[in-house]
Amino acid sequence: MSGLFWPGDHRAGSAMSEAAFFEALLAAENAWLATLVAAGVAPSTAAADLGALVERADLDEIAAGAERDGNPVTGLVAMLRSRAGGDAARWLHRGLTSQDVLDTALMLCLRDAVAKVRGDVIAQVHRLVALIETRGAAPMLTHTLTQPALPGTAGGKFAIWLTAVLDAADTLDALPPQAVSAGGAAGTLAATTELTGSPQAAIALTEQWAAALGLAPATPWHTTRSPITRTGDAFVGCCDAWGHIANDVAAGVRTGELAEGTGGGSSTMPHKNNPVLTVLLRRAALAAPPLAATLHAASAASVDERADGGWHAEWATLATLARRTVVAASQATELLTGLQFDSARATANQAAAQGIYDEQQTMSTLVGKPPAPDYLGATEALVDAAVRRAHQYLKETS
Amino acid sequence: MSGLFWPGDHRAGSAMSEAAFFEALLAAENAWLATLVAAGVAPSTAAADLGALVERADLDEIAAGAERDGNPVTGLVAMLRSRAGGDAARWLHRGLTSQDVLDTALMLCLRDAVAKVRGDVIAQVHRLVALIETRGAAPMLTHTLTQPALPGTAGGKFAIWLTAVLDAADTLDALPPQAVSAGGAAGTLAATTELTGSPQAAIALTEQWAAALGLAPATPWHTTRSPITRTGDAFVGCCDAWGHIANDVAAGVRTGELAEGTGGGSSTMPHKNNPVLTVLLRRAALAAPPLAATLHAASAASVDERADGGWHAEWATLATLARRTVVAASQATELLTGLQFDSARATANQAAAQGIYDEQQTMSTLVGKPPAPDYLGATEALVDAAVRRAHQYLKETS
Amino acid sequence: MSGLFWPGDHRAGSAMSEAAFFEALLAAENAWLATLVAAGVAPSTAAADLGALVERADLDEIAAGAERDGNPVTGLVAMLRSRAGGDAARWLHRGLTSQDVLDTALMLCLRDAVAKVRGDVIAQVHRLVALIETRGAAPMLTHTLTQPALPGTAGGKFAIWLTAVLDAADTLDALPPQAVSAGGAAGTLAATTELTGSPQAAIALTEQWAAALGLAPATPWHTTRSPITRTGDAFVGCCDAWGHIANDVAAGVRTGELAEGTGGGSSTMPHKNNPVLTVLLRRAALAAPPLAATLHAASAASVDERADGGWHAEWATLATLARRTVVAASQATELLTGLQFDSARATANQAAAQGIYDEQQTMSTLVGKPPAPDYLGATEALVDAAVRRAHQYLKETS
Amino acid sequence: MSGLFWPGDHRAGSAMSEAAFFEALLAAENAWLATLVAAGVAPSTAAADLGALVERADLDEIAAGAERDGNPVTGLVAMLRSRAGGDAARWLHRGLTSQDVLDTALMLCLRDAVAKVRGDVIAQVHRLVALIETRGAAPMLTHTLTQPALPGTAGGKFAIWLTAVLDAADTLDALPPQAVSAGGAAGTLAATTELTGSPQAAIALTEQWAAALGLAPATPWHTTRSPITRTGDAFVGCCDAWGHIANDVAAGVRTGELAEGTGGGSSTMPHKNNPVLTVLLRRAALAAPPLAATLHAASAASVDERADGGWHAEWATLATLARRTVVAASQATELLTGLQFDSARATANQAAAQGIYDEQQTMSTLVGKPPAPDYLGATEALVDAAVRRAHQYLKETS
Repeated sequence: MSGLFWPGDHRAGSAMSEAAFFEALLAAENAWLATLVAAGVAPSTAAADLGALVERADLDEIAAGAERDGNPVTGLVAMLRSRAGGDAARWLHRGLTSQDVLDTALMLCLRDAVAKVRGDVIAQVHRLVALIETRGAAPMLTHTLTQPALPGTAGGKFAIWLTAVLDAADTLDALPPQAVSAGGAAGTLAATTELTGSPQAAIALTEQWAAALGLAPATPWHTTRSPITRTGDAFVGCCDAWGHIANDVAAGVRTGELAEGTGGGSSTMPHKNNPVLTVLLRRAALAAPPLAATLHAASAASVDERADGGWHAEWATLATLARRTVVAASQATELLTGLQFDSARATANQAAAQGIYDEQQTMSTLVGKPPAPDYLGATEALVDAAVRRAHQYLKETS
Repeated sequence: MSGLFWPGDHRAGSAMSEAAFFEALLAAENAWLATLVAAGVAPSTAAADLGALVERADLDEIAAGAERDGNPVTGLVAMLRSRAGGDAARWLHRGLTSQDVLDTALMLCLRDAVAKVRGDVIAQVHRLVALIETRGAAPMLTHTLTQPALPGTAGGKFAIWLTAVLDAADTLDALPPQAVSAGGAAGTLAATTELTGSPQAAIALTEQWAAALGLAPATPWHTTRSPITRTGDAFVGCCDAWGHIANDVAAGVRTGELAEGTGGGSSTMPHKNNPVLTVLLRRAALAAPPLAATLHAASAASVDERADGGWHAEWATLATLARRTVVAASQATELLTGLQFDSARATANQAAAQGIYDEQQTMSTLVGKPPAPDYLGATEALVDAAVRRAHQYLKETS
Repeated sequence: MSGLFWPGDHRAGSAMSEAAFFEALLAAENAWLATLVAAGVAPSTAAADLGALVERADLDEIAAGAERDGNPVTGLVAMLRSRAGGDAARWLHRGLTSQDVLDTALMLCLRDAVAKVRGDVIAQVHRLVALIETRGAAPMLTHTLTQPALPGTAGGKFAIWLTAVLDAADTLDALPPQAVSAGGAAGTLAATTELTGSPQAAIALTEQWAAALGLAPATPWHTTRSPITRTGDAFVGCCDAWGHIANDVAAGVRTGELAEGTGGGSSTMPHKNNPVLTVLLRRAALAAPPLAATLHAASAASVDERADGGWHAEWATLATLARRTVVAASQATELLTGLQFDSARATANQAAAQGIYDEQQTMSTLVGKPPAPDYLGATEALVDAAVRRAHQYLKETS
Repeated sequence: MSGLFWPGDHRAGSAMSEAAFFEALLAAENAWLATLVAAGVAPSTAAADLGALVERADLDEIAAGAERDGNPVTGLVAMLRSRAGGDAARWLHRGLTSQDVLDTALMLCLRDAVAKVRGDVIAQVHRLVALIETRGAAPMLTHTLTQPALPGTAGGKFAIWLTAVLDAADTLDALPPQAVSAGGAAGTLAATTELTGSPQAAIALTEQWAAALGLAPATPWHTTRSPITRTGDAFVGCCDAWGHIANDVAAGVRTGELAEGTGGGSSTMPHKNNPVLTVLLRRAALAAPPLAATLHAASAASVDERADGGWHAEWATLATLARRTVVAASQATELLTGLQFDSARATANQAAAQGIYDEQQTMSTLVGKPPAPDYLGATEALVDAAVRRAHQYLKETS
């Protein structure tokens, strides 16, 4: 995951990065130990700042050792125990299983990734509303099946994009809140119950842990993976929307009606002004759906009280999909922000199109009235409806 | 799509079948003409029962001719016009485009498919609650990564399945209602506005049409395809859940703890009692995710005011996915209904497992108390929580 | 699978249709019985024309009953036994398992589908060579990343398409020949060995069966599914090539340089001339890759001596993919056959392009010589190389 | 791509890593400049060791800047020019386009990845032949559809695995050799022709470049991507084979007949001996097919003389798939090398199976002879055939 293989990857920053995941694993262990102590389950002598025991440089050792047990948590716990010593070593991780820590860390990372995506979605909604308000009245020919269809407006085009983005926003908003996983070895909270003395106390402890991490509480979901698949589906829905916009921009760039704010250069052709963000968004839209399909296949491979491969296929796939989506979100915002619309060219192109009023003639003959002065139909009303929906979304989101 | 290539396909009956789709296309055209007449846009002499003009036997001709224009609607409209004659011929389909009719017909079919799936999901929830109540207390060993883990109960296993099914139900319930598509040639309602005289009247007409069909109204969504992708994702989420259950049954059949009510025979081995429903559910879980990925790829290929291939890739893919899901829903219900649980075997298997109390020993040593009499932890409380969620779902759904 | 959901499906005719599959199942059983009799394993009184015992109308009953045992063969064998009676009933299917019959029938159908595709590929190679010879010298602007790049020729464009088609042809030609599956219940030929008295005789019998069906002999491949996955991959490779060509045609249609021979009409806009074949080919290219991915996922789910779901996921997926490919093959041939190239428009478009000789200026400055009279580079030589490869392919194929 | 998200990733070492890709980009540029000089196209004063101008630490800058032009090559060329100065700066990269350099670098990396995979495949073939020779005669029950089927041997099981691995090897061996891409800006070799004075000289130059890099020569393949898709398909075919083996091991671990040489531990359950390699191989088999599907979708999105997104979607996807495959290859070798087979347990399990000789009874009754002393059929002959095929493969490969 770098810009060599995926130009623009730096936009994602630490979102779902290895380093962020490593910190999230640590944060989960640290908060659990603190919760055990705070609840009086572990003695106060067990309190420790686990985060101070491990540094970024330890990541490689943990990563390389992850294969031994099939996940990085067992190795991390061993490292923490050897460094913490004393009661902290004795108590840390007690009650949890490696899947709890790993799944909870995934959720911490996902929370941040979703927030970043949502931030860009909001910016895009603002920008599209502004585009509609400032440039929406200009003529812009519609096309169907690659061919000129009927007269249209730039506002009509931007309203389609706005609807696509709002639909994606709806799917994001329909996601359940990210939640901890805290089932213990077999999802029964057996160890935590043994430690606390009662199932009720064990469940309460998981709720305190969730609160400490800013996540939702949940019953164990070791083999019920809809929190993963639903998020993946929502990410893909976002990439679909931006891919669609990029397709329209690519078509508009070919006709000269649209251009990116700043295009890319060529290593050999000095005259080129390539629609780079457009191209990179189309890339993301191609790559995203199969990643979400893998998450579903992994979920469907759930078995027993911990899966024998399905679970393991999720982590990298989810991280890649999340990162691709965060990058594309940012690129889409930049694309829309810098988008150049050449209304003179668009007006000329529409004026030159053949046959785009033929349908109107058919209709006016049918009703026996002269044709209306334009043939934009309900374009304005539909654009207004999209803008109203945007304002409602922005109001509910803020 | 027959039982030769997909055994059990007959369970889907007419759900998303070619015949049902053909009828839905007709129903959409018929209701539109009636709406035009009822609204006084078309003269009363245009009223006609279009459904009576075409019969099942015409399907093949329409299907074979669909390639000429890229979709079956143009041919259907031509056939209806030639048979209706007079004012009906002059008025039918006016204001719509072929994509409106096709997308609306897809939604009519989807509505029925989703309802069938939801019906089975409800039945499964009932059955799983009953299994928990009647058999839930029996011991049943848990496994992680294929290996014996900790003691468990049959109720714990069934509660995991119940949670998986309820998660799938949640995704189904989060779907927006199926809506008409009524944008006209370029999604601008231009023709309908020309016919009715105003955008407001045009929009009102689409709302009346929606009401006549029992669908929701909507602004045009020719190139914003989340109504398709979200449904596809929800279907896959269901197949994931049933695939997971089938994996557990397959594992339980190997150990003798579980069996299907009636297994399948072998063409050559008389002693076999094959877990056929289990196998067929695992099949569906393998096939579903890539179909939904195709729907996303198609959605992401949206461009202009009608896509140049993306739209066309949806129909058969959606029909296949919907049908697979309806079949799997029914098979999962039957699997759960007939499921045999051999508690004596399960009890013996758990008793024979090595080391499953070792963790308890570690914990009790840690807290300095004797081990609790069992090591089921919060199993009962977690099962109760799943059952409460089930009752809440059933209450809200009824 | 009809033209309602997949316009153009009729082009595939019986290729991998349910009816053809049903006949292939029968042919496999019939040839096996004949082989048993011819080899003297079964008595001559067991000889029977099984094909005469079952007719097309029985397909539905077999299909509907296929779920009972998880595949249609067990029911077919039972039907054949009940109708044949006597020694034929006693002997038919002996030695085989249902998977043998089903897999062998798939291969019979695949053989026909691959032959149809190859026939179209050959026609496309001929057509592209002819296009190069007759129209290849005309100017045609190249584009990279949607933008005008350097001067080019129509021959250069057609040679790219030709290379894509020849690459697909290579993958088809690299497929192993379709082979029978004849392993018996557990892939050990146990029953046939018991019947014939020796492993060598059993293996010889499977070779005779293969010869009778026109298939290759093979050791059992119940759970080693590369014959399926490799064919799927080759089909997708073909759809990739045609999708690529369709993308170029779609771009050329937008600029007016290319047009389909006969475009499609609109249900409401009389002026439209839609590139329907282009659109439908793009559709196939979107739908094909995930189907092949399912075949791989199914193959990877192989387990034991017969898979518990992986095998079952293959049949419909393979049939769909094969049929889509056969349809697309035919559509691509028609697209290329009717393709209209407007050389005047192409010449004008190239003449109007800005900056496409800037790179040449850089190069001629670098070498200190005046620019060459054109800037087509090795276009002609590369086109010639593609044509030579085409002739070689046609020579080897004929 | 680290062991945190994909345990075992370290096994792939530099295979298709960012660092290796960066070096391959440099190697491609370096060899091109040397080729220009050696051919007398560039002056001898242009000779330079470009590799010495850039170091690993520059990777991040190049990666972060890659988005500006949509790929990392333009930035790399600029960096090289600024550091080389003089004639080297003037001449480096002349004749190439960024896609040439990037695609050629991909091929250099792929060559190494394929070689690693092939090395493991050979080791697996050796190991499986050895397993057959030393343990093959032991009884091992066959299963179909999860149920006991007929008697079998360990050799029969290992021969199935061997066949799966040899099939994967065949697909690897059928790959065309990795080739350079050297078409220049629009795939016409225009710049190189301008520099060298003739198309023949330009083509000869690309052949010298290929020879210098140890790659095959090729006509330009900017938008004909079968070199990528075929490699992806072959990788998936390998993962399918190992996934299948892992499924069998997972099943065998459940019955106690098989065990990994060294299993993994649990973070909380001291008694666990988890089949970690098995689990991680199943993971790879789940994740691989959709990645290859993305490569096909990207290939099918080819358009013009350089694709507007399809090309860009390939790089990271291919790198991920290659790396997953290299890791899985190594894990599969280790799994097979360490595999424990408990023949006493296998013998006992087969002895305890019900009904596995019923079919033999049917057959012996049919032929009117007493049952043969065993019911292994042609198992031994089929195992021998697989071993012969293995020896043939090893002979041809060495």
